[in-house]
Amino acid sequence: MNIHRTALTLALAALLPLHASAQTAPTTAEVLANAPADAWRSPDPAHTLYLELPAGRVVIELAPDFAPEHARNIVTLAHNRYWDGLSILRSQDNYVVQWGDANAGSDQARPLAPAKSKLPAEFDRSADGLPFTALADGDVYAPQVGWSQGFPVGHDPATGRIWLTHCYGMVGAGRDAAADSSNGAELYVVIGHAPRHLDRNITVVGRVLDGMQWLSTLPRGTGALGFYEQPEQRLAIPRLRLASDVPAAERSALQVMRTDSASFAQLIEARRNRREDWFISPVGHVELCNVPIPVRASP
Amino acid sequence: MNIHRTALTLALAALLPLHASAQTAPTTAEVLANAPADAWRSPDPAHTLYLELPAGRVVIELAPDFAPEHARNIVTLAHNRYWDGLSILRSQDNYVVQWGDANAGSDQARPLAPAKSKLPAEFDRSADGLPFTALADGDVYAPQVGWSQGFPVGHDPATGRIWLTHCYGMVGAGRDAAADSSNGAELYVVIGHAPRHLDRNITVVGRVLDGMQWLSTLPRGTGALGFYEQPEQRLAIPRLRLASDVPAAERSALQVMRTDSASFAQLIEARRNRREDWFISPVGHVELCNVPIPVRASP
Repeated sequence: MNIHRTALTLALAALLPLHASAQTAPTTAEVLANAPADAWRSPDPAHTLYLELPAGRVVIELAPDFAPEHARNIVTLAHNRYWDGLSILRSQDNYVVQWGDANAGSDQARPLAPAKSKLPAEFDRSADGLPFTALADGDVYAPQVGWSQGFPVGHDPATGRIWLTHCYGMVGAGRDAAADSSNGAELYVVIGHAPRHLDRNITVVGRVLDGMQWLSTLPRGTGALGFYEQPEQRLAIPRLRLASDVPAAERSALQVMRTDSASFAQLIEARRNRREDWFISPVGHVELCNVPIPVRASP
Repeated sequence: MNIHRTALTLALAALLPLHASAQTAPTTAEVLANAPADAWRSPDPAHTLYLELPAGRVVIELAPDFAPEHARNIVTLAHNRYWDGLSILRSQDNYVVQWGDANAGSDQARPLAPAKSKLPAEFDRSADGLPFTALADGDVYAPQVGWSQGFPVGHDPATGRIWLTHCYGMVGAGRDAAADSSNGAELYVVIGHAPRHLDRNITVVGRVLDGMQWLSTLPRGTGALGFYEQPEQRLAIPRLRLASDVPAAERSALQVMRTDSASFAQLIEARRNRREDWFISPVGHVELCNVPIPVRASP
């Protein structure tokens, strides 16, 4: 699976105006190499989580613009070390990894206070006041899709609503039957093909910026829904911290590409029309969850 | 993430003809429980591979209708134990796991004979003579998508061509620059969000029916494209066999739901409109790669 393109495709490209102009557009690697400093932002440490696992650190950026009540509660829980010593409860192949309190709902449940035990559902919000970078290629699930504030989103121009979508690496708040039964204490991360049917059915709270492999390679649980059947199969969480509660020298210095930047627009185009030599056909379309939102080490 | 639906949604459903009729349609679990015996087929042992890893067996069904030359070569390679002692070379998060000969292309390469070293590209084929179950919800990448012979496919009614699509668990034949540079000796499996941009750019040869977790949880390689940087990081393959070369008592007795059956049509509908109680919104659409093609133990 090396990367080349045939002479035939190059010859065809020269005949077609669309491809001819595309020929001059940058590849993904070129976009990343040439993005100016102002195409990048540093995530807010007060809304960044470090899930510290034995294998390594998972860095999560919360999305307070989309789930403000959940973000606030999760910040409170992390600040109060709620998850330390709790565990990863579930790893379902091609779906999600989930962590929280195995005793939730029982007498042995760890207290949430000073965090709240009850929050409103935050499945979507008004698009007013938010930037929105639209993807031209359409979507099976949403009237419109694109990006806002560094996250993949669905958008309905008819209702003016916008919502975070379940792409790989997105983080959500598990709930029970009632729409408002999540409080952020039990979190899941998408580790497989985007389960977009969950969009607007559950509150999405953020995205993994780094360390996905420490979650995606966890042994799968053998119980229903990938829950670990034996308590000893669960992976204990040494600690989960707010980045702002960690000394500056111990923080992960990461930058995320701004999804309203010219560089990100170039990246979308580079993913729609693959100009790497390997591609025989440049494709011409891209699905929302197949456009990576680049993360890099701070220069 | 338990499964319930609110009283409000049930009340709304009663008011809407679409939902009212949907209300009587089965859920995924009901479809699986009630599918008649003739909705299932047993994969052909002569076109089924067992990749035996230390953790467990990965069962792969080849697709000779879509990639006849590659299927024939892979059968020859497996019958001659070509992969025994070779290794998994690559594990790239949210993309693919790949195995083959680390020395391919060098003087130390393991000989392929009696298998062929050169095959035609088999990126697509004529749809003539193949069953096709269409998905009504559209697709970002292909004019039409659906299923044929137990595999997810793209279809172009304008050209009459049909091709296997890169959904989770699909298996393809790695290639170099030239379209016809794959020979089936190096195989990859999709372990993340469907990389549909690979469709019609590479030859897809089959699908994993069982044991995906033994591939998807492999440690990720730290080199470019997820290649393992050190030879000792590679996972040696104890053996890879054709099911028909394994004594009957040692075979995995699996059945696959026929994708041209009434049960599969019900399953598609059950995935388009989620009637499980947990869903607040039944969704109303489904993407090709979010419809599982059920596999069960033979009864």
